[in-house]
Amino acid sequence: MTELVSQRLPEKMSTDRAAFDALCAGTVLAHVGVVVDGRAKVFPTGFAVLGDELVIHGSTGSRWMRALVGHDASVTITKLDGVMVARSTFESSMLYRSAMVFGRFEVAAAERQAELLNAMSDRIIPGRSAEVRASSKRELAATMALVMPLREWSLRVSDGWPEDDDADLAGDAWAGVVRFGAPPATADAAPDLRDGIPVPDSVAALVAHPEHIV
Amino acid sequence: MTELVSQRLPEKMSTDRAAFDALCAGTVLAHVGVVVDGRAKVFPTGFAVLGDELVIHGSTGSRWMRALVGHDASVTITKLDGVMVARSTFESSMLYRSAMVFGRFEVAAAERQAELLNAMSDRIIPGRSAEVRASSKRELAATMALVMPLREWSLRVSDGWPEDDDADLAGDAWAGVVRFGAPPATADAAPDLRDGIPVPDSVAALVAHPEHIV
Repeated sequence: MTELVSQRLPEKMSTDRAAFDALCAGTVLAHVGVVVDGRAKVFPTGFAVLGDELVIHGSTGSRWMRALVGHDASVTITKLDGVMVARSTFESSMLYRSAMVFGRFEVAAAERQAELLNAMSDRIIPGRSAEVRASSKRELAATMALVMPLREWSLRVSDGWPEDDDADLAGDAWAGVVRFGAPPATADAAPDLRDGIPVPDSVAALVAHPEHIV
Repeated sequence: MTELVSQRLPEKMSTDRAAFDALCAGTVLAHVGVVVDGRAKVFPTGFAVLGDELVIHGSTGSRWMRALVGHDASVTITKLDGVMVARSTFESSMLYRSAMVFGRFEVAAAERQAELLNAMSDRIIPGRSAEVRASSKRELAATMALVMPLREWSLRVSDGWPEDDDADLAGDAWAGVVRFGAPPATADAAPDLRDGIPVPDSVAALVAHPEHIV
């Protein structure tokens, strides 16, 4: 933590790709901003970073995704890691990491669609695509993967210990950090599941380790 | 779940204020979209819904917050509740709730600033503002609360069970939902904490119940 710049907020800009990748590997939720009718709209969506591309996917009927293609957009990926509890409310803050990616989404080439859509599925439930049937042509035609080249991005990290002034240090208030771990997860079978079908390996692994999602 | 409209995605628009409030009470993270130099930028921030206002706060030196004041903006609040695991990747999806709020932020009136800033602190660490000293005039002058009237908003809920077609229902693939609970939390005292200062009630409660944050 000591390398963090001391300032009003314990926040540091970073260009560390490994730190960026670690953030992206710890959540599947991105918020995509795009100008619609002169207003900035923000849409939540699953995402994956695959190599040097940021990939999202959705229905070909999705209006916001269609509006997105070919236009300037930004993608923000945020993870709340905890709370910094200082000796005053003023010095207290959230511990978080947040990346902003800028660029334009394009529809992935037709020959890459099936592979990218499987990669998106496996990003959420690792190993799932190999456990189920392949997508049909009709299904593939109803879904699209959009890719944004990973060229322009920034990462903001808020971490470290409270930095209270001397008067507060001498006082009786507690200070420290509260950190969140990976949440517990449970799997419930669908009411229409046929008898005798066990929880598959992919779902068991997701329940044991959901930390790539939340 | 049965009231959910069956469609490509198990997603339903809602105008239920209680459901909106429940979402907002389950996370402190919002993503604010604003047009900067013709591009939609998306900034993560803590937020609170207080009555019929959406409140955010930050340093008076924050460039993006200053750019926000008086301009059309949108605020998106999202919670990932789990994963719907269908019998095909096509029918699988995330379970989530997401609200979008539209409007303009204004700087709260000077006489409301101290109260709103305490409310923001207590939104994150309930009871904390009463445990520590009041903010100084200098600190209050360095911080600002921005408010957006809660007039135009929408809520999108993706929930329910997989809806696979008959051929998949007859197959051997598992189906169900994976749901996430509240994460575990830990409190670590700051290295410079004086001996004999116990973890305060507010922090103990946050560690036991962080579900209003994540």
